[in-house]
Amino acid sequence: MRCLIPAAGRGSRLARVAEPKPLAPLLGVPLIERVIRTAARAGVREFCVTVGHAAEPLRRHLEALGPRLGLDIRCVANPDWEAGNGTSVLAARACLGEGPFLILMADHLVDERTVRALLRRAEAGHTHDLLLAVDTDLGNPLVDPDDVTRVRLEDGRITAIGKGLAPCDGYDTGAFLAGPALFEAMERAWREQGEPSLTAAVRLLAAEGRAHALDLRRAVAADAFWIDVDDARALRRAEEALLRRLRNKATDGPVSRWLNRPLSIRLTRHLARLPVTPNQLSLATFALGCLAALVMALPGPLALALGGLLAQASSVLDGCDGELARLRFQESDFGGWLDAVLDRYADGFLLAGLTWHVYAATGAAAHLLVGLLAVTGSFALSYTADKYDGLMRARLGRGAPWRLGRDVRVFIVFLGAVLNAALAALVVVAALMNAEVARRIWVARRAAAAA
Amino acid sequence: MRCLIPAAGRGSRLARVAEPKPLAPLLGVPLIERVIRTAARAGVREFCVTVGHAAEPLRRHLEALGPRLGLDIRCVANPDWEAGNGTSVLAARACLGEGPFLILMADHLVDERTVRALLRRAEAGHTHDLLLAVDTDLGNPLVDPDDVTRVRLEDGRITAIGKGLAPCDGYDTGAFLAGPALFEAMERAWREQGEPSLTAAVRLLAAEGRAHALDLRRAVAADAFWIDVDDARALRRAEEALLRRLRNKATDGPVSRWLNRPLSIRLTRHLARLPVTPNQLSLATFALGCLAALVMALPGPLALALGGLLAQASSVLDGCDGELARLRFQESDFGGWLDAVLDRYADGFLLAGLTWHVYAATGAAAHLLVGLLAVTGSFALSYTADKYDGLMRARLGRGAPWRLGRDVRVFIVFLGAVLNAALAALVVVAALMNAEVARRIWVARRAAAAA
Repeated sequence: MRCLIPAAGRGSRLARVAEPKPLAPLLGVPLIERVIRTAARAGVREFCVTVGHAAEPLRRHLEALGPRLGLDIRCVANPDWEAGNGTSVLAARACLGEGPFLILMADHLVDERTVRALLRRAEAGHTHDLLLAVDTDLGNPLVDPDDVTRVRLEDGRITAIGKGLAPCDGYDTGAFLAGPALFEAMERAWREQGEPSLTAAVRLLAAEGRAHALDLRRAVAADAFWIDVDDARALRRAEEALLRRLRNKATDGPVSRWLNRPLSIRLTRHLARLPVTPNQLSLATFALGCLAALVMALPGPLALALGGLLAQASSVLDGCDGELARLRFQESDFGGWLDAVLDRYADGFLLAGLTWHVYAATGAAAHLLVGLLAVTGSFALSYTADKYDGLMRARLGRGAPWRLGRDVRVFIVFLGAVLNAALAALVVVAALMNAEVARRIWVARRAAAAA
Repeated sequence: MRCLIPAAGRGSRLARVAEPKPLAPLLGVPLIERVIRTAARAGVREFCVTVGHAAEPLRRHLEALGPRLGLDIRCVANPDWEAGNGTSVLAARACLGEGPFLILMADHLVDERTVRALLRRAEAGHTHDLLLAVDTDLGNPLVDPDDVTRVRLEDGRITAIGKGLAPCDGYDTGAFLAGPALFEAMERAWREQGEPSLTAAVRLLAAEGRAHALDLRRAVAADAFWIDVDDARALRRAEEALLRRLRNKATDGPVSRWLNRPLSIRLTRHLARLPVTPNQLSLATFALGCLAALVMALPGPLALALGGLLAQASSVLDGCDGELARLRFQESDFGGWLDAVLDRYADGFLLAGLTWHVYAATGAAAHLLVGLLAVTGSFALSYTADKYDGLMRARLGRGAPWRLGRDVRVFIVFLGAVLNAALAALVVVAALMNAEVARRIWVARRAAAAA
C-alpha cells in the first residue's frame, strides 16, 4: 500500500517557524517526518511525497530519511501546486500505481491506530470508494473550530463537506483511503469547477454516494489522536498534546504519576530540542544517582539532605530517557533494558550510601543488616516485577496507583534524607520492599493454584 | 483421539515389586501414570484402560487420577485377559469409538515427542492402516535383546514381526496408531490361529501390506526415549535413564554441569521416594543458604570453611527441586520463579556473610564496598540473565559451558572460604560478575544495532 503525502503548498501561517512548513520541528522531529514515521509503524513502506514550494530542502531531507528508516520515499514535483492541493494527487498518479492508496497530510499529526484501521479496511476490499477518517467528537479541544473542514454524515456516507458547514456531524482529519476514482473526481473538479482541491473532489464523490466515513471514535479508539498544525499556536498545542500523552504509562507508580512524571515531562520538552540521545540520558541519570549515593554517605545532616535531593532529582530525570525515546520514535528494547539495569545499580548504591551514613554515625552492625535487607528487598522487587506485572496485567488496567516500585523507594530515601531520619527511611524501605515481595509470591501462588 | 492402554495382564516378572505391575512405582510415580501423563502432555485427553488381573487397585488409582489431571480415563473390564493382550483391544472396542486411536503399553515408557508424532500422522489422515513406532537404533542400550519384539521393514512397511527375528531392522516400541482394521485382524488371529495378541494381529496386517512403521530415529528425534519395563532390572535401567535425562539443562553453567548436577541427581534419586514437594525443597535449600551465610559471618577460619561447605551444599541441593519436579511431572512456572527469587535472597545473604567475615576482621570500609559491588553485580547478573539467554539462545545450543551464573558464584565463595581467602573470593566475585554484566550490555547493544 502506497501513501501519498501532499507537501507542495506554501503553509504561509507557519512561515516564520520553518520554511517549508513540513520541516517545522515539533519537539525535535519535523512535522512530515512524524507523519511518515507514524505511518511506517502502522506498516506503510512506500511513500509518494509531492513537492512544490521550497522543494529543495524538503527533497534533501526526505532523500536522507528514506534510507535511514528503510523506507521507499519518492519525491514527485508538482508544478501546479499554486492551483490547489488536489493538483498533488494528479501529479502523483504515476507514482501511486493502480490500486488503492492512502493519503495523509504533511501537517496533520495522525494516530498510528488510525492508519492501521484504514489499512485494515483496504485489506478487507474497500478498494474503489473513498474512505475519510472523520472525528465525530465535536468538542475535541485540539480542533480549531474556525479552520477545520467539517462533514455531514448519513449511514456512514459523507453527504456534505466544507469549512463553513453548520450543523455538522464531524471533522475531516486529513487521513484517507482512496482509489483511482479520486483521480477522475479531481480532474472533473478542476475542469468543471476550476477548484482542484481534495475537498472539491470529495464533494463530487459524496454527491454520488461514493465517499465513506471511518468514525475515528468508534472504529479506531475513543482516545485516537489527531491535530492539524496550521500556525504557531497549533504547533504549541500539538506539543502540549504529545507531551500529555507521555503521562499514560501503565506501570507508573504513585510517585511517578503525581510527582516525577509531571516534572520529567517539563524537562523532556526542553531536552527534545537538544542533540542528546535517550541512552545518553540513561547514563547521565545513572551518574547523578551515583553522585547522590556518594554525597549521602558523607557525615552530617547537610550532606544527607543534599544527597537525598540529588537522589530524587535522578528519579525525576529517570523518566526523561523513555519520554524522549517515545517522542522521537527512538524506543528500543535495548534502551529500556539498559535503563533498567543501570537503575538496579543506582538502587544498590543509593541504599548503600544511606546505610553507610547511618552506620558511620552509630557503628551498630544491626544497621548494616537493615541496609542489606533494604538492598536485597529492592533488588528482589525489581526481579519480580516482570512476572508480577504479567500476572496483574488484567487487573492493572491503566495505571497502577499503588504499585510499589523504584519511584516509591527513592522517594522514601529522599524524605528520610531531608528529614534527617536516615535509619527510619532504611527500615521502612527494608520492611516495605520485602513485604511486597512476599505479597507478590503469595499472589503468584494463588494465580498458579487457580490455573 | 482416544488412547487404549492394555493393562489387564499379570506381569509376573515384576510381581515382587508391585501388584499389579502397572502400579509399580518408578521414582515415585507408577508406571501407568507416567504413560498417561506423558500422553496427556502430548495432547491426549481420553483414555481407555483395560483391566483384568488385580483389577481393583488399578481401577481405584485411575479413578482418582482422571479428575486430578482433568482427563477422561475409563476402565474397561477384560474377562479374557489370560488368552492374550489382543483381547484387550477387542474388549475396549466400544470405548474406542469409530475413528483411529492410539495404543500405548502400560509398561513401556514413551517419549512425549513420539506420541506427538503419531498424533500428527493421525491428523494428516493416516486413518485406516496401522502405524507402529519402530526403533531403528539396533544398538540402543535400553533394549533387552532377549525380550524385545523385532520387526523387518521394507519401504516403510512392516514385513515381519516376532521375538526371534534375525536379522531385523528395528524394535517394536509398543506405541501404535491403529484403526478399525485392527479389530478385524485381531478377531481373525484369535479365530484362525488361536493367538489373540497384538503381534499376531500386526503380522496379519503386515501380510496385506497394511502395517506401517514410524521410524523413531528419523521421524521423531535421534534421542527419542523409550523403554520396556518388564522386570526389576529393567525398572532400575529405566530409573537410570530418567535420571540421566535430567543432565541436559541448556542454562547449566560449568560448575552445575560437572559438579553440582551429578551430585544433585544422586540426591534426587532418593528424594523422589519421599513425600516432599519441589517447592518444599526450594524452601529447604534457601534455609540452608541462610544458615551458610550466618556461619560464614562468624569469626575464625573454621566457621568460614564450614559456612563455605554449607553454601556449596545448598548450591548442589538447589538443583534437586527442578529435577524432582521434572521427574514427577510437577514443573510449574510458579515453582521455577519461586526458586529464582529465593536464590536471589540467598545470594545476597551469602555474599553479605562473607563480607562481614572480612570486615569484622579488618575494619576496612573498602571491604564493605567490595562486598557491595559483589552483591550488586550478582543481582545484576541474574537480572540480565533472561534477556541475555533470549538473545543468545541461537548461539547457546545445548549447554553453556562458560556461562557465568549462580553455580560459579557460589563455587568461588566456597573455594575462598575453605582456602581461608575470603577477601580474594569477594574481589573475584565482584570483578567477574560486574565484568560479565558489562559484557552482556555490550553484546545486547551489538545485537540491537544489527537488528
